[in-house]
Amino acid sequence: MLDDGSTAARKDRQLQAVLDSAGDDGRLEGGFDALRLPHRALPEISLSEVSTRTVFLGRELGAPLLISCTTGGTPRTYEIIARLARAAQVRRLAFGLGSQRVMLEFPEAARFFQVRALAPDVPILSNLGAVQLNYGVTVDDCRRLVELSESDALVLHLNPLQEALQEGGNTNFSGLLGKIEALCRQLPVPVIAKEIGYGISGEVARQLVDAGVWGIDVAGAGGTSWSQIESKLASSPRGRMVGRAFAAWGIPTSRAVVSVRRALPQVPLIASGGLRDGVDVAKAIALGADMAGIAGPLVKAAAASEEALMEYVDALVQQLRVAMFCTGAADVSSLRQVEVIWEGQASTY
Amino acid sequence: MLDDGSTAARKDRQLQAVLDSAGDDGRLEGGFDALRLPHRALPEISLSEVSTRTVFLGRELGAPLLISCTTGGTPRTYEIIARLARAAQVRRLAFGLGSQRVMLEFPEAARFFQVRALAPDVPILSNLGAVQLNYGVTVDDCRRLVELSESDALVLHLNPLQEALQEGGNTNFSGLLGKIEALCRQLPVPVIAKEIGYGISGEVARQLVDAGVWGIDVAGAGGTSWSQIESKLASSPRGRMVGRAFAAWGIPTSRAVVSVRRALPQVPLIASGGLRDGVDVAKAIALGADMAGIAGPLVKAAAASEEALMEYVDALVQQLRVAMFCTGAADVSSLRQVEVIWEGQASTY
Amino acid sequence: MLDDGSTAARKDRQLQAVLDSAGDDGRLEGGFDALRLPHRALPEISLSEVSTRTVFLGRELGAPLLISCTTGGTPRTYEIIARLARAAQVRRLAFGLGSQRVMLEFPEAARFFQVRALAPDVPILSNLGAVQLNYGVTVDDCRRLVELSESDALVLHLNPLQEALQEGGNTNFSGLLGKIEALCRQLPVPVIAKEIGYGISGEVARQLVDAGVWGIDVAGAGGTSWSQIESKLASSPRGRMVGRAFAAWGIPTSRAVVSVRRALPQVPLIASGGLRDGVDVAKAIALGADMAGIAGPLVKAAAASEEALMEYVDALVQQLRVAMFCTGAADVSSLRQVEVIWEGQASTY
Amino acid sequence: MLDDGSTAARKDRQLQAVLDSAGDDGRLEGGFDALRLPHRALPEISLSEVSTRTVFLGRELGAPLLISCTTGGTPRTYEIIARLARAAQVRRLAFGLGSQRVMLEFPEAARFFQVRALAPDVPILSNLGAVQLNYGVTVDDCRRLVELSESDALVLHLNPLQEALQEGGNTNFSGLLGKIEALCRQLPVPVIAKEIGYGISGEVARQLVDAGVWGIDVAGAGGTSWSQIESKLASSPRGRMVGRAFAAWGIPTSRAVVSVRRALPQVPLIASGGLRDGVDVAKAIALGADMAGIAGPLVKAAAASEEALMEYVDALVQQLRVAMFCTGAADVSSLRQVEVIWEGQASTY
Ligand SMILES: Cc1cc2nc3c(=O)[nH]c(=O)nc-3n(C[C@H](O)[C@H](O)[C@H](O)COP(=O)(O)O)c2cc1C
Ligand SMILES: Cc1cc2nc3c(=O)[nH]c(=O)nc-3n(C[C@H](O)[C@H](O)[C@H](O)COP(=O)(O)O)c2cc1C
Ligand SMILES: Cc1cc2nc3c(=O)[nH]c(=O)nc-3n(C[C@H](O)[C@H](O)[C@H](O)COP(=O)(O)O)c2cc1C
Ligand SMILES: Cc1cc2nc3c(=O)[nH]c(=O)nc-3n(C[C@H](O)[C@H](O)[C@H](O)COP(=O)(O)O)c2cc1C
Repeated sequence: MLDDGSTAARKDRQLQAVLDSAGDDGRLEGGFDALRLPHRALPEISLSEVSTRTVFLGRELGAPLLISCTTGGTPRTYEIIARLARAAQVRRLAFGLGSQRVMLEFPEAARFFQVRALAPDVPILSNLGAVQLNYGVTVDDCRRLVELSESDALVLHLNPLQEALQEGGNTNFSGLLGKIEALCRQLPVPVIAKEIGYGISGEVARQLVDAGVWGIDVAGAGGTSWSQIESKLASSPRGRMVGRAFAAWGIPTSRAVVSVRRALPQVPLIASGGLRDGVDVAKAIALGADMAGIAGPLVKAAAASEEALMEYVDALVQQLRVAMFCTGAADVSSLRQVEVIWEGQASTY
Repeated sequence: MLDDGSTAARKDRQLQAVLDSAGDDGRLEGGFDALRLPHRALPEISLSEVSTRTVFLGRELGAPLLISCTTGGTPRTYEIIARLARAAQVRRLAFGLGSQRVMLEFPEAARFFQVRALAPDVPILSNLGAVQLNYGVTVDDCRRLVELSESDALVLHLNPLQEALQEGGNTNFSGLLGKIEALCRQLPVPVIAKEIGYGISGEVARQLVDAGVWGIDVAGAGGTSWSQIESKLASSPRGRMVGRAFAAWGIPTSRAVVSVRRALPQVPLIASGGLRDGVDVAKAIALGADMAGIAGPLVKAAAASEEALMEYVDALVQQLRVAMFCTGAADVSSLRQVEVIWEGQASTY
Repeated sequence: MLDDGSTAARKDRQLQAVLDSAGDDGRLEGGFDALRLPHRALPEISLSEVSTRTVFLGRELGAPLLISCTTGGTPRTYEIIARLARAAQVRRLAFGLGSQRVMLEFPEAARFFQVRALAPDVPILSNLGAVQLNYGVTVDDCRRLVELSESDALVLHLNPLQEALQEGGNTNFSGLLGKIEALCRQLPVPVIAKEIGYGISGEVARQLVDAGVWGIDVAGAGGTSWSQIESKLASSPRGRMVGRAFAAWGIPTSRAVVSVRRALPQVPLIASGGLRDGVDVAKAIALGADMAGIAGPLVKAAAASEEALMEYVDALVQQLRVAMFCTGAADVSSLRQVEVIWEGQASTY
Repeated sequence: MLDDGSTAARKDRQLQAVLDSAGDDGRLEGGFDALRLPHRALPEISLSEVSTRTVFLGRELGAPLLISCTTGGTPRTYEIIARLARAAQVRRLAFGLGSQRVMLEFPEAARFFQVRALAPDVPILSNLGAVQLNYGVTVDDCRRLVELSESDALVLHLNPLQEALQEGGNTNFSGLLGKIEALCRQLPVPVIAKEIGYGISGEVARQLVDAGVWGIDVAGAGGTSWSQIESKLASSPRGRMVGRAFAAWGIPTSRAVVSVRRALPQVPLIASGGLRDGVDVAKAIALGADMAGIAGPLVKAAAASEEALMEYVDALVQQLRVAMFCTGAADVSSLRQVEVIWEGQASTY
């Protein structure tokens, strides 16, 4: 795609579509409502001693939470990511930048991704579509993105359906695995592979990890639905029809987490896609995730106000803490041992 | 039935009922919503190299799609099938004529089935109710139908329930198998057996294939519902009551496809009945079908306008292509290997 | 209960409550919607040769249908049962009288149960609450009821919940089995045991048959709901509350049929409770019943008009016939061999 | 918490929230609707001989019912518990006082818990949050509570989630088991451990019984939902958000009963949480409970009027009696032998 002005414009329209939507419009559920955590009436711990702390990418976090990649790169979106980054810093959460591709053509966009000064102590993740490696982006380009934004890692998002639903999307995904492998070998920071709302299966995750990818963010179905967004944004009736057919596409987040964890017992694993409160976060971790990512609701809250954002973030952490307390899990690694009950298989109490 | 003028009139009323209906009115689902295709975040192919091409009845098709048998035989309906046939030609899809029985009594109706000039390169399927073989229709009659419409095959539809719900329907289905066998032996083109919305089971398919039938179109429950149409068209309260009782009758399309494929691993198999978009088409093929047929929505689009029809057809093909891309299937035979996930058995990711 | 005038009055109020109700108000389903019959696209029979005929209690019937026990005994209700009896005679169906208990105290009520002249050729079933055997009713009483109404059999209804929900109901059901045994031994006609909407299990059916009962009418849950009727008729809030708690009580009809047939492979078995059309009737027979009984809808139709009643009856028979045709069952005994598919276990196609 | 005036005030606001709510607001079901009791058409008993009598804590009861712990301690709430206690006495039911913690700081509150004179013959249960043992409450304090209210037992409620959702809640649950053990050893009356709406699992129950607890009241999820109440009462948006995330938290009552009974075949076991009528009570007992507790609906009825309360109580007992009658269970211990049918596993009829 030559016209990168239009890329930025499209990103803006996408963001606006998310901000305008009432909620998650897809027809799939992440699957968290069908899960239950076992209540312990006698937790034998104190809520105040429950620690949500964890370490991610070598940095101490206040909670196993990632403010997931959404936006950045323009004055308007910088305001939003600045709020998100400040929240990340204050509560010690990981923070993901939106796709930095625009920086590669318009170097002046770089400063609208620079939040390190606002969030000096937490992991910042750079972000780029993996498919760009097939469209001229080099290892050096990636290195530059990471350096300019002083990131701790690079998130490569895999978004075949999203690209396919966009007019003029970048849909050549052939031979990507080899290029990802080369990138992982040469980049000084770890690479995380991530979907954007349709999930990564255990099988694909294994290919990625074999290629040198450090961690996986499943970004499964059940939350922000790109087929719905792209179908709303489509300029032609055909575009809208194509998008709508994929309303129920993808691997529900809970399934993806289980699938990846089964395939790769040790890989750093982020659950995201449709997590909406700290109880969902607790379920995701009990299913096997190390971290939980949230995008849509946080970008909405940040667009509303700094206060709304902090309310949401603090509620998340408190919900997680209370869920841990009520399952008797004093820390994140204990939470990971808690058995999850799938609805209809409640015989395990 | 002697009064064939009334047959044509009834066909017109049926068509109108379909055009007037908001959608599929039956109480059964084809079962496609309960199926999921496994998303591959890393398809390792390019969307542009995904090929939906296939060969059907010796002709190359742009996609494994059949514009299913609906109408023809009168000036008004000719307009519709002409549009359908032109679309079939432009996009290289198979095209099925509606029942040609009227031609047997009114030879002048023949020209309102002649679309070969409009669709010189694609398979055209003639159509006749199998039960007519019990009502005086001969092998020579069938040969004539096929010749006059320059068809590649003859579709014999099996519609016991539809006939039973019509006042004065042709309901003597005894001894048909033997007559079908004789017809298959003598007709110069292959015979395809097809239901019209209630499905063909593996057991029945096997009988038909043993009798010499070349291919099966399951035409299962879940789409256009004849019990609803006939019950609306019925002139008496009793007729309406009888029709309504069959609103949930039949074998859901997805089940019928699985059943026939299991019984007959090699038979040319068309999935139809309730397929509504290219994702459904992809699911049908992954379940084991070679082709996917669509009737109701296409005849509606064609009745609306040539543009509406092309929009629908192009959306179908694009949805199929994107679904293939996102499962990593570069061609139709790879799609056939993709594992389908039945809801509630999602452990296979 | 001393005040038998009030018994007749209560029966009238019950009847009125049924006539006033929109449909089946209980919270349970008979389970027929979750069943499917296997469609045969090639039935190899003619609809006209499908025979719904059967023999019941030594009489030839046009269809395996029982107009189930509802009412009688007063001038007003006689009009209704006269219509029902005439329909039974014209279409050759079995006919059941409502409870004849009132005759035991008011012999003059007898003539409002006499429909033999209207239905000379079909089985007429007398009806009495089994519990009356604990309230002074003798074998001779029963013999008299049967003789006066020239019945072919006596239906003893077992209605512990209905009696319990009525103010002043007859709720002493102890030692009944022995009395039923004595009655069966001495009565010149066969005895059929029947619930009135909560079902008879295989275990109870076996006890009854061991005691000499000839046939079982399961009268299961899913149709006319006595807990709802009694709770509407209750004079006190407490009465209403008690009734409502039993809205989902009972054995769904489909389950009861399977349970009794499994326990007693040979017993004459009537399925009733919530059957609403001839497709339900076909399912009931395929599940193992010999006859299908319908009460609520028929009494409503009869109360409306003779025409409405005949429409309903003829629709029932035609629906049954068409269902048989479409499963390839030429007669009732073939229908009994048809395999029923339970939803969610559709692998058997 | 120092400010006990505010404790009383909060209790009042909680009570008001329950009285104001339309019904049970949680998103979980106790699971009783998915259970069925097997109907016996021939119960072979008389309704009048069905005995709901049982013995609890050495006292004869008219029914295995506990008016569960809700309120007391202020003039206004005393009115309510006085009504409840009188009903308990008249119908011979067990009666539970609401949390008596306020008595420990305001001894003058004691008289607003004194209902022994109103209910001389039935078990009265004292009530205290187990967590108070971590906040300075001693064995002597407990003994005093029990003595002043002349109770037969002390109910220690375990409410980690409720405390966590309250601003300033007492959330130090560490080391409680040891203190409970000491209390059980020294208290002259038996101790019952109880949740308040999120359930006790078999595993936790075993720990408690090993520590000397006499009986378990599961108080499972499905009825009065404290997360909903606390989220309504929360003063901050964050408080409301935190509460709402727990709307579907907890062990459904039916599951908890099965789990505890499996773990502890002999323990005195009270089922509560979402039981709403005597059919639910019958199901709970058939599942393995000895007693059934009801709180929300009874406190509402009592707040309305003495008549409303008696209607409700009498309906409960009558529903239980009728359910027993229709399963052929003449007494509570026979009811305990009745097999419960879980929906979807109805093969056991
Ligand atoms: C406005 C918006 C923009 C997004 N942009 C990106 C992006 O640039 N790169 C990326 O990897 N994911 C992007 N995502 C996807 C999210 O990171 C996340 O995977 C997805 O929204 C599912 O999480 P959610 O349900 O919590 O929103 C975006 C999401 C939103 C809502
Ligand atoms: C208006 C209309 C007319 C039809 N006429 C015929 C016909 O003449 N012969 C035939 O085999 N099927 C006929 N069908 C059935 C279709 O071919 C197809 O099997 C059925 O409609 C299910 O597919 P759908 O759900 O995509 O509509 C007709 C369908 C429609 C909607
Ligand atoms: C108005 C009315 C009166 C009834 N009276 C009797 C009766 O006297 N004796 C009896 O055995 N059943 C009686 N029944 C029960 C029916 O025979 C039948 O078992 C029950 O209604 C379930 O069938 P349905 O769902 O088709 O109505 C009565 C039903 C109705 C609707
Ligand atoms: C207004 C109200 C106050 C309550 N207070 C107490 C209490 O002080 N101590 C306690 O153990 N449980 C308390 N409960 C919980 C009940 O005892 C019971 O466990 C819970 O409400 C679930 O039962 P239900 O669904 O029948 O209401 C209270 C319940 C209500 C409705």
